[in-house]
Amino acid sequence: MSTARDQMARFHSIIPAGRIGSRLWPLSRASAPKFLHDLTGSGQTLLQDTWDRLTPLAGKDRILVVTGKVHKAAVLDQIEDLSTDNLVLELSPKDSTAAVALAAAILMKREPDVIVGSFAADHVIAEDEQFRETVREAVTVAATGKIVTIGIEPTEPSVGFGYIKAGEPLGIEGAPNARDVAKFVEKPNIARARKYVESGDYLWNAGMFIAPAALLLEQLAKTEPELHAALLKIADAWDTEDRKTVMNKVWPKLKKVAIDYSVAEPAAAAGLVAVVPANFSWHDVGDFAAIAELQSQGRRGNLAVLGNAKVLADSSSGILVSDTDRLVALIGVEDIIVVDTPDALLVTTKEHAQRVKNLVDALRTTGHEDVL
Amino acid sequence: MSTARDQMARFHSIIPAGRIGSRLWPLSRASAPKFLHDLTGSGQTLLQDTWDRLTPLAGKDRILVVTGKVHKAAVLDQIEDLSTDNLVLELSPKDSTAAVALAAAILMKREPDVIVGSFAADHVIAEDEQFRETVREAVTVAATGKIVTIGIEPTEPSVGFGYIKAGEPLGIEGAPNARDVAKFVEKPNIARARKYVESGDYLWNAGMFIAPAALLLEQLAKTEPELHAALLKIADAWDTEDRKTVMNKVWPKLKKVAIDYSVAEPAAAAGLVAVVPANFSWHDVGDFAAIAELQSQGRRGNLAVLGNAKVLADSSSGILVSDTDRLVALIGVEDIIVVDTPDALLVTTKEHAQRVKNLVDALRTTGHEDVL
Repeated sequence: MSTARDQMARFHSIIPAGRIGSRLWPLSRASAPKFLHDLTGSGQTLLQDTWDRLTPLAGKDRILVVTGKVHKAAVLDQIEDLSTDNLVLELSPKDSTAAVALAAAILMKREPDVIVGSFAADHVIAEDEQFRETVREAVTVAATGKIVTIGIEPTEPSVGFGYIKAGEPLGIEGAPNARDVAKFVEKPNIARARKYVESGDYLWNAGMFIAPAALLLEQLAKTEPELHAALLKIADAWDTEDRKTVMNKVWPKLKKVAIDYSVAEPAAAAGLVAVVPANFSWHDVGDFAAIAELQSQGRRGNLAVLGNAKVLADSSSGILVSDTDRLVALIGVEDIIVVDTPDALLVTTKEHAQRVKNLVDALRTTGHEDVL
Repeated sequence: MSTARDQMARFHSIIPAGRIGSRLWPLSRASAPKFLHDLTGSGQTLLQDTWDRLTPLAGKDRILVVTGKVHKAAVLDQIEDLSTDNLVLELSPKDSTAAVALAAAILMKREPDVIVGSFAADHVIAEDEQFRETVREAVTVAATGKIVTIGIEPTEPSVGFGYIKAGEPLGIEGAPNARDVAKFVEKPNIARARKYVESGDYLWNAGMFIAPAALLLEQLAKTEPELHAALLKIADAWDTEDRKTVMNKVWPKLKKVAIDYSVAEPAAAAGLVAVVPANFSWHDVGDFAAIAELQSQGRRGNLAVLGNAKVLADSSSGILVSDTDRLVALIGVEDIIVVDTPDALLVTTKEHAQRVKNLVDALRTTGHEDVL
């Protein structure tokens, strides 16, 4: 059996940087999605935080970023150490299977025994070293021939996440916490979410996967053979001068499917998926209410302030997110959310933070694409 | 006795355009006070509405505007028919006695028997013709040698206005509603305000005065002889080439005193003041809550919108005042006040509308004069 050290030498990270984050409009836009913003007040964007969290695992040359073509300049600007060979630019959105499996195929072409780990660019994790410990344990499990997901201990009966039902402990040396995955379940209703949390057997699915690239692609070949073949075609050309030609020809026709459906669920049914529970805190900062809670920097009384706004607040609480240099005055507004950008202003409350997505949908159907 | 027709030939209006309207920050500024804004959605500013309300009384050549020097261009731009001979520019704010009595003195120099009426530039009156009827009645009373104020029937026990205690009917021909003024009383507390309103003898003091200029100045000479003399000096030079020289020399030293103290109250004590109750609705639009109630135009559901903002409102009520072309999105905010200007944003609620003034004071003491 290989040692943990050997296994980590096989490891390579993938950062899918795709989601716009509609619930964070008007800060997040198609042109400037969530991952390009500093949502924690750390002084770095979520993408930069993700990059810095991953580099100690296998080095700066072993991280591949998958993002939209329009974000090329912004991503390269934010991540100085990223080479264009490790930057996959999606010509159009094709969902998570295309993004992650293409990255895995490119990396496997370079190193047949590579173990890949996929970590979204727009999540917030405070304890980086604990995160890396969990990833190392997951890599140990993956090396035994498993697709491994990292499960998040639920802090509340959320209806906003899918859940992972954990099965028996796997008893793998060097991975004391690893368990079999009985099944993945989709976002539940509140009653079911409460049962899940009470049972103690359910974890949140944060969409983090660690697996031998070969195993991942083998599973994909079973469920989506055409998509698999198309992705291999791009991967074969990636490190050649045909990259652009093949990409332009093949990418537009790729099937859109979430990797949960194409790989994770079928593999779980086949007994091939394991879970390592996270020993770190995790947030997907899905809306402004979540940002308000995360914000520890820049608090003025009960008001969290993100950005460099001049603020005058009287008897007010909530969050102000500012992307302008205007003065913002708040009087007697509680649990308020104010998001001030050069061309759009949002005023809502923490209670209604989730409804921002509906508003973005309404903007789309009423011809306000210019601010989306 | 002169006929009503003769009396109106003696009439000349004065529009003091001075107040900034701090409770309407950040829309109203030192550089762009309340009267220069369209607060009713009429398509005209309050100053233009005031001008149009007065012109049918005595013609466009018989209105004199008193405003700050910095507003010269804006006022002349808004009122095309105003000649600079009828525009008094205050070099610095000197309160209402200087403004109104100087105007009266200039007009008396031109026409010794002139009857002047002073009407603030920033009040809202819906029924213009009824307003003019009331003014005509007041002019009839003034012609008998009275200082006449127009009293507003209270619609609520407001603590925001001074009150006029009406005395006996005067029985003047052509002025059936005129009564003696027993006294002026300052802004009361709420208990006293309730008693005033219940009694039926008290009217709001809206600061409108109609009087023979000679009588007004005679009263001023008794209470403030130095100020009176200084104002006559400016008035003597007004229609000569010395206007500027004398103004520059005399104005800076003028005493600051409200006309209520210098003229109205002492004259009432001397039995020289009458009141004609208004038969029109009147608002001083003192804060954004008042604007929200006035706004009949541009309503989208329960949200009043002033300005040309693109608005998307979901389950929201209150008022949006926009001085930008930004998109404004509101979700689940009730009785909200949002005022969006290029360099400052205010978010508060109707309940706290009066506190905007405190905020402006705070801005002044914290070095934010640039947005005042």
